[in-house]
Amino acid sequence: MMQTAADRNIRLDLEYDGTDFSGWARQPGLTTIEGTLEEVLGRILQQPVRLTVAGRTDAGVHARGQVANLWTASDMEPRRLQWSANQLLPDSIAISAVSDVPGDFDARRSARSRTYHYTVLNRSWPSAFQHRFVHFVNGALELDALNDAAARISGRHDFTAFTPTVTEHSRFQREVLYSRWVREGDLLVYRIQADSFLRGMVRALVGTMLEVGRGRRAAADLSRLLDGAPRPQAGETAPPEGLCLQAVEY
Amino acid sequence: MMQTAADRNIRLDLEYDGTDFSGWARQPGLTTIEGTLEEVLGRILQQPVRLTVAGRTDAGVHARGQVANLWTASDMEPRRLQWSANQLLPDSIAISAVSDVPGDFDARRSARSRTYHYTVLNRSWPSAFQHRFVHFVNGALELDALNDAAARISGRHDFTAFTPTVTEHSRFQREVLYSRWVREGDLLVYRIQADSFLRGMVRALVGTMLEVGRGRRAAADLSRLLDGAPRPQAGETAPPEGLCLQAVEY
Repeated sequence: MMQTAADRNIRLDLEYDGTDFSGWARQPGLTTIEGTLEEVLGRILQQPVRLTVAGRTDAGVHARGQVANLWTASDMEPRRLQWSANQLLPDSIAISAVSDVPGDFDARRSARSRTYHYTVLNRSWPSAFQHRFVHFVNGALELDALNDAAARISGRHDFTAFTPTVTEHSRFQREVLYSRWVREGDLLVYRIQADSFLRGMVRALVGTMLEVGRGRRAAADLSRLLDGAPRPQAGETAPPEGLCLQAVEY
Repeated sequence: MMQTAADRNIRLDLEYDGTDFSGWARQPGLTTIEGTLEEVLGRILQQPVRLTVAGRTDAGVHARGQVANLWTASDMEPRRLQWSANQLLPDSIAISAVSDVPGDFDARRSARSRTYHYTVLNRSWPSAFQHRFVHFVNGALELDALNDAAARISGRHDFTAFTPTVTEHSRFQREVLYSRWVREGDLLVYRIQADSFLRGMVRALVGTMLEVGRGRRAAADLSRLLDGAPRPQAGETAPPEGLCLQAVEY
């Protein structure tokens, strides 16, 4: 889009329950987060809206701290834009903040890192309240083994083993700044922060670590996989419901 | 049902997300919690199942600590019954415990009291994560005023003003053992414990107290209403999503 001196750059902070969406990215004939937001914002701003986003989440994945930006010629107050959009959006998408930002802010390119959480409910019975946001695992999971595996993920590695073989990515090195599991009652929460993520990376890492937590794979195997092993040597992709884009760091 | 010496009395502890159900009670042609449970349990126990329940929740109302009991001639282990039922039940209903109980246990008649929570999200933007479980209120709510009103509800009163005029109840006196609001971050949570509840009572009390919290009704008005005033003099019925049967005390 052509930008003029009058155009404003607006940052949106978003949260969504991704259960009923075909992911972030607009796709013809499918209900997506991006498509829904662009339609509602376009109606309010009375112009076509294109969003730039920090993390393109997959189908069924959630966000508490997603960030997007858009350019507009509208002079609508940020608070009014937020309120109007939240009125029109479905209950499962909410705009937590709207702010004017400098022209060089780009939700994707300006991001220094992203933090994802993956939540496992580890007990003998499922939760009627949390089922949209947790991966239910009945049976023992060893926290120490999970963290032995998680510690090996920290640092710079080749994550080829943790993204689909057919890929849009051209480089597979990523820098992981934080990688750790914590137990919170019946929940096991994995927190990972990295400069950026390959498609499906967190869920493939979690699926592989869960095999370690169950005693079916050695934690040391992670080190080998992180040296550019092919996808089939890593574990299954964990289901999307446990995954949430928690924050984007600028 | 005829009970023989061989019959067992089984207690179920339940939680459910009531959003997509037409309430607890079985109704022809509608999806209800009771109907869904009786169907699944009947399939597992291979006999018709009739549940007795502590609190018949309305459409859209949730439970974390609902209790029911059933009689069966089956000798299936409680753990296996729980596991099998949770496998077959929809994600929005979960059995948290199954146990054998003495023959004189009746989930409804043996209950000494019930505790409900009503949760209000009080901030300027709605929550994509909690929308199924909170009533969103934008605009100031005065906690002290809410608690002035709530304190007047404690004790024995005539709750005619807080249940529909067309009623299945024959007596309207109830004993409220606990009635208090607390603020937890953006949430305002009302906790009420009573010997038993009239239909719609908590939501009518909350709707009336919210008028007090907004400064549109005097807290002292509660005392007048609790002396048997007619329904129209009290406030609106608050929406079901904020209400949850938290616990049943035996």
